Amino acid sequence: MTIKISIDCMGGDHGPSVTLPAAASFLKRQSDAELILVGQEAVLQPLLKKYKLAGEARIRIHNATEVVTMEDPVEVALRRKKDSSLRVAVTLVKDGQAQAAVSAGNTGALMAVSRYVLKTLPGVDRPAICTILPNQKDGPTYMLDLGANVDCEPQHLHQFALMGSALVAVMEGKAKPTVGLLNVGEEDMKGNELVKATAGLLRADHEKGILNFYGNVEGNDIFEGTTDLVVCDGFVGNVTLKASEGLGRFVKQVLTSEFKKGLVNKLGALIAYGAIKALSRRLNPSRYNGASLLGLKGLVFKSHGGADVYAFEWAIRRAYDAAKYDVLARIAASMAELMPQGQGRTAEAAALASEPAPVSLDQPN
Amino acid sequence: MTIKISIDCMGGDHGPSVTLPAAASFLKRQSDAELILVGQEAVLQPLLKKYKLAGEARIRIHNATEVVTMEDPVEVALRRKKDSSLRVAVTLVKDGQAQAAVSAGNTGALMAVSRYVLKTLPGVDRPAICTILPNQKDGPTYMLDLGANVDCEPQHLHQFALMGSALVAVMEGKAKPTVGLLNVGEEDMKGNELVKATAGLLRADHEKGILNFYGNVEGNDIFEGTTDLVVCDGFVGNVTLKASEGLGRFVKQVLTSEFKKGLVNKLGALIAYGAIKALSRRLNPSRYNGASLLGLKGLVFKSHGGADVYAFEWAIRRAYDAAKYDVLARIAASMAELMPQGQGRTAEAAALASEPAPVSLDQPN
Repeated sequence: MTIKISIDCMGGDHGPSVTLPAAASFLKRQSDAELILVGQEAVLQPLLKKYKLAGEARIRIHNATEVVTMEDPVEVALRRKKDSSLRVAVTLVKDGQAQAAVSAGNTGALMAVSRYVLKTLPGVDRPAICTILPNQKDGPTYMLDLGANVDCEPQHLHQFALMGSALVAVMEGKAKPTVGLLNVGEEDMKGNELVKATAGLLRADHEKGILNFYGNVEGNDIFEGTTDLVVCDGFVGNVTLKASEGLGRFVKQVLTSEFKKGLVNKLGALIAYGAIKALSRRLNPSRYNGASLLGLKGLVFKSHGGADVYAFEWAIRRAYDAAKYDVLARIAASMAELMPQGQGRTAEAAALASEPAPVSLDQPN
Repeated sequence: MTIKISIDCMGGDHGPSVTLPAAASFLKRQSDAELILVGQEAVLQPLLKKYKLAGEARIRIHNATEVVTMEDPVEVALRRKKDSSLRVAVTLVKDGQAQAAVSAGNTGALMAVSRYVLKTLPGVDRPAICTILPNQKDGPTYMLDLGANVDCEPQHLHQFALMGSALVAVMEGKAKPTVGLLNVGEEDMKGNELVKATAGLLRADHEKGILNFYGNVEGNDIFEGTTDLVVCDGFVGNVTLKASEGLGRFVKQVLTSEFKKGLVNKLGALIAYGAIKALSRRLNPSRYNGASLLGLKGLVFKSHGGADVYAFEWAIRRAYDAAKYDVLARIAASMAELMPQGQGRTAEAAALASEPAPVSLDQPN
């Protein structure tokens, strides 16, 4: 079966100069995929030849006259620019023309538009943003929420855990991914009221075999890779992520200035360059680009705004994998479990959950 | 005037083998200081000669028969080991025999014991832990709370801002340190209910000239040094700090393995060693050792448990500076401002606040 992905070609810091070559490279690798290139046709059409997409049967341009900039407030994206490439890419998912959308546009706008256009899945109160961070075990740590929900109740974190767990199961081919609850200590008695109440819900799911709940984890566990998934509210997740990014830049600055200061020979410069490159490859790997907007009636992936061609291609691949292995059905099934008998089993939820996804996944490299 | 500091000589990962030589080195540098060495006399006495403290007129050993280990639960420190070096060091502050206490013992135990023994200042609902982090401007970013208070109300963050601001003013010799409120975005409309309500309180203080409120800051601003002080609840502060520590270890591991892998020559090893040392000097500087327990009727400083001699000496110096420049009076005065007319001005608060501290400080190097 062909997988169709809609791409917001105008989004991000670089627009078509990144999204088009990434699309071309992706298509070469994935023979059962088709891409809908969404954006201003007058801009995109002349570029197709440059990026070796002219005459490609597995693409089509879908015209969208407006562009949401990185600076546009959510309100503008939501109420004013109704024909933006960001919005149209998401609408194509809603209309069934694409199975997933990818955008490097601004996160707030993408979440607001996706939520408005796609609506939330039955049983989900609030969609969340799930990102992937590198860890010392050289694997990914999935973490959510990253900022969509700054005030949470225990049932929200509970839903995040279920949705995130379903995502990791499919994307990483792990039948029972471990779930950690971000806290200030490992012991059950530790934490604020929110996490203590959430732990009770997650433990109950663990006992029922619905969730593989590891227990509390601490900040350092994110980068140690203690669990496959780390669950937190969007306030904590956002601050932690940005603090880590800030520290990463600090490290880079120190290394750069240290090498410049102490070493004048070419070997030193070479080593310094290599070290910084290696660090950035390990700490900010392109293959982890593509955060998931979870809990919607459709798949939407968010690329870093500053992603390069290689990283943006990874975001497309993640969207492709999620569509191919039907993350949506898996999440819908998880959420239906949560709901009181009968209530969750609306025709809609049943339809979404009807085809359980396979857990094995041939992740492209 | 002589400044007297009580030292929990048994605390931390290394006990007397770190605390005693640090005490000796500190005394050599600071001629107007006296130290009370608290711990098991039978252990400490024989070590004095080794660390060149025998015959030193400005020390005395104060016997304490018990030791709080790093693993002891708070309950044990609080209710069972009543003659621990940790507790006795704090009690000496309460009794007026010392102006500040320093311990490398476990944070939870130190906070619980200090709170129990010293009680909180008038106007302070909850004491907080204020630590110092390095930033890209090569200065310190003060941050609180780091975990003492995981569920906070706006008035608590408000009190943290006032106490932290008073601490920075004295310790850094800055008349009006800038205060940032940790949030998920810079705009006023961003954030959870807690920070939005807190921002209102801080803005009001800014308008009254009580506080130099910069506004919202984000996670990355901690390491960019955007403000002198960053205020957050103890849950967010603890998770952020531990995530940063975890990322720091990750960076070290990557650099170490990268250098080992790629380089076989001696120059490479030398450069690698230098780079890692430089990083650790910038990211985890000894001179920033010594977190403050703020809001108590007495000065208590917490050293890292794993501090070496040089770092522990810095914690003693911080305690000395805080005592010498009377951080306590400054904080008491700030908190008294907060309270309804009359109520704050108890005889006790007035006495504590009677001698405003000078803002200039000759920080030892």
